[in-house]
Amino acid sequence: MLQLGASDGYEPLKRVLIEFLRAEGLHLRSEQLLITDGCQQAIDLVCKAFLRPGDSVALENPTYPGAVAIFAGARVRMLAVGVETDSRRIGHVGMDLDALESVLLQNRVKFIFVTPDFHNPTGTMLPLAERRRLLEIASHYQVPIIEDSIYARLRLRGTALPSLKALDKSGNVIQIDSFSKIAFPGLRVGWCIGPENAIERLRLVKQSTDLHTDQLAQATLAEFVRRGYLARHIAKMKKVYRGRLEAMEAALEKHMPKEATWTRPEGGMSVWVTLPPGFDAGELLIHLRERGVLFVPGRYFYLQNPQPNTLRLGFAALDEKKIARGVQTFSELLKVEFQKRQRGARSELPSRVALI
Amino acid sequence: MLQLGASDGYEPLKRVLIEFLRAEGLHLRSEQLLITDGCQQAIDLVCKAFLRPGDSVALENPTYPGAVAIFAGARVRMLAVGVETDSRRIGHVGMDLDALESVLLQNRVKFIFVTPDFHNPTGTMLPLAERRRLLEIASHYQVPIIEDSIYARLRLRGTALPSLKALDKSGNVIQIDSFSKIAFPGLRVGWCIGPENAIERLRLVKQSTDLHTDQLAQATLAEFVRRGYLARHIAKMKKVYRGRLEAMEAALEKHMPKEATWTRPEGGMSVWVTLPPGFDAGELLIHLRERGVLFVPGRYFYLQNPQPNTLRLGFAALDEKKIARGVQTFSELLKVEFQKRQRGARSELPSRVALI
Repeated sequence: MLQLGASDGYEPLKRVLIEFLRAEGLHLRSEQLLITDGCQQAIDLVCKAFLRPGDSVALENPTYPGAVAIFAGARVRMLAVGVETDSRRIGHVGMDLDALESVLLQNRVKFIFVTPDFHNPTGTMLPLAERRRLLEIASHYQVPIIEDSIYARLRLRGTALPSLKALDKSGNVIQIDSFSKIAFPGLRVGWCIGPENAIERLRLVKQSTDLHTDQLAQATLAEFVRRGYLARHIAKMKKVYRGRLEAMEAALEKHMPKEATWTRPEGGMSVWVTLPPGFDAGELLIHLRERGVLFVPGRYFYLQNPQPNTLRLGFAALDEKKIARGVQTFSELLKVEFQKRQRGARSELPSRVALI
Repeated sequence: MLQLGASDGYEPLKRVLIEFLRAEGLHLRSEQLLITDGCQQAIDLVCKAFLRPGDSVALENPTYPGAVAIFAGARVRMLAVGVETDSRRIGHVGMDLDALESVLLQNRVKFIFVTPDFHNPTGTMLPLAERRRLLEIASHYQVPIIEDSIYARLRLRGTALPSLKALDKSGNVIQIDSFSKIAFPGLRVGWCIGPENAIERLRLVKQSTDLHTDQLAQATLAEFVRRGYLARHIAKMKKVYRGRLEAMEAALEKHMPKEATWTRPEGGMSVWVTLPPGFDAGELLIHLRERGVLFVPGRYFYLQNPQPNTLRLGFAALDEKKIARGVQTFSELLKVEFQKRQRGARSELPSRVALI
């Protein structure tokens, strides 16, 4: 373990991971699995292996900023595909497949990057019919999919859906995944599943990138999985996170001004809030930070057309009391802002009229 | 430690590493130090941060194949600079600085990649006067240097020379280094030292590449350094490796046919052997492998003009008896090959004459 190892991963980890995935219904050969330093590196490896400057990828907009950083650094063109975020609507939620299809019609796209389960930042989950349609579209246009499954095991309610990888018959999906959200983020170990020829190409790029993933971390996680601790840890996390998500939703219902809306994710780590147009989440954050409340302004997740009135509230890292208090503090500030604006609108009216 | 960490490295490791380097005479601020997944990743990060397809770098020829793999993958042009390998010669050994200067005159070069201490594969060490001249040349042509110091602490005899980084006054050197050769290669942790603005740029690229280096490995090594184990371990390794190098040299002197020459490295992990022209180390390896003897044919280390009659003998991983036996087996095969060739030359002579 302390000597140089294999670029495709530490064999005992690969073995227990294949067993773990088999218990989830995914049957893999070792040649279809590459251990990486996490999903971030997996995207970087895909980029180095298969993309050249000027190539195009289609991504959800908003999306994970770490993916944008990689593609931007590699001078890959990013084509934004909208995300339907209203999870109270029946039917389609997640990547807008009509928009995707028009992007694929008009551009030579090399990859579709998509997070079907508990999309970061919106928390949306692509329904089964849309998963099938996405695979058909990808197959029709012969564009492979990178499926980011990093949050899929953090399902906190509702019924699990098969991944794109599980539904795919044509070897058109590279699935990236990680121990980061289900075990220890500080241990940089993830994995990548795909057709053997793609995995072999990624393995060679992995080798020239950093030889292999740290073996102390791989051996630690192998033992963690082998002893059944991972399955138990996930069950425990889900129970804790479910309580936190419910606490956040209860607080939002109770305190939020009626003008704000938010998503109802069935899993993941965050809720996506939309304020009325004209509000700037970044400005609100300046005031809330002083009161000990933090969130991520939505604009950081947009490839284009950033919506300043959106924001991501994380519920995973805080206990239920802190969540309730944070949402209340946030809501109170929002209400004050609403009142200011209404007064401002009234008081400004005469001067505006005077200017006409 | 188990949560996401800082992209520039785990703070306790950075702290003890700065102390460790200070004891070696290098005074650093934290902003001049970036933790990486090892030297392989450090080269990859430099490549991503500062090089674009079509840019040129100057490298020793032969050189470390891992560097070639990175630059080739990034479509960076590699310019070969010869290496003087005869360590019995007084004076210049290592990168041919006249050749470097002519490469810099004729090309717009973005980086000089050089291993001044115990160059892989030749084991050469650049003398002090040549280190100074290399810095002057680099400064004159305004080309920054990447100094690979991975073997520098494995000095097994002779007097240590200051690194290029230590000699540099103009902030023109990025030094890459690693725990790989002095502690545990399976723990992928190394570091990179440079001017603050370069380190900040590399940190941002590191962040988008894999967020940060594994923290379990970083914490383990921090403790290993803090308790003084690393210094003790290096001292022990040097003693063991010195015995192995001497055993290899004794066996080479005793058994090798006089037509072969080899370098006399003062450190590192290998000896570079040159056979007479016409010998092919790759072909010899096929026969030796069956007898349990392995080496790396020299051709794998060349950017251009591969010399099939060269090879790298590693002495670090085997005990002295195995080294002696391996060199003897190798030498015996070589002698048989020599005799075959001499007989062949004699017996072929008439037929060649007949053909004229």
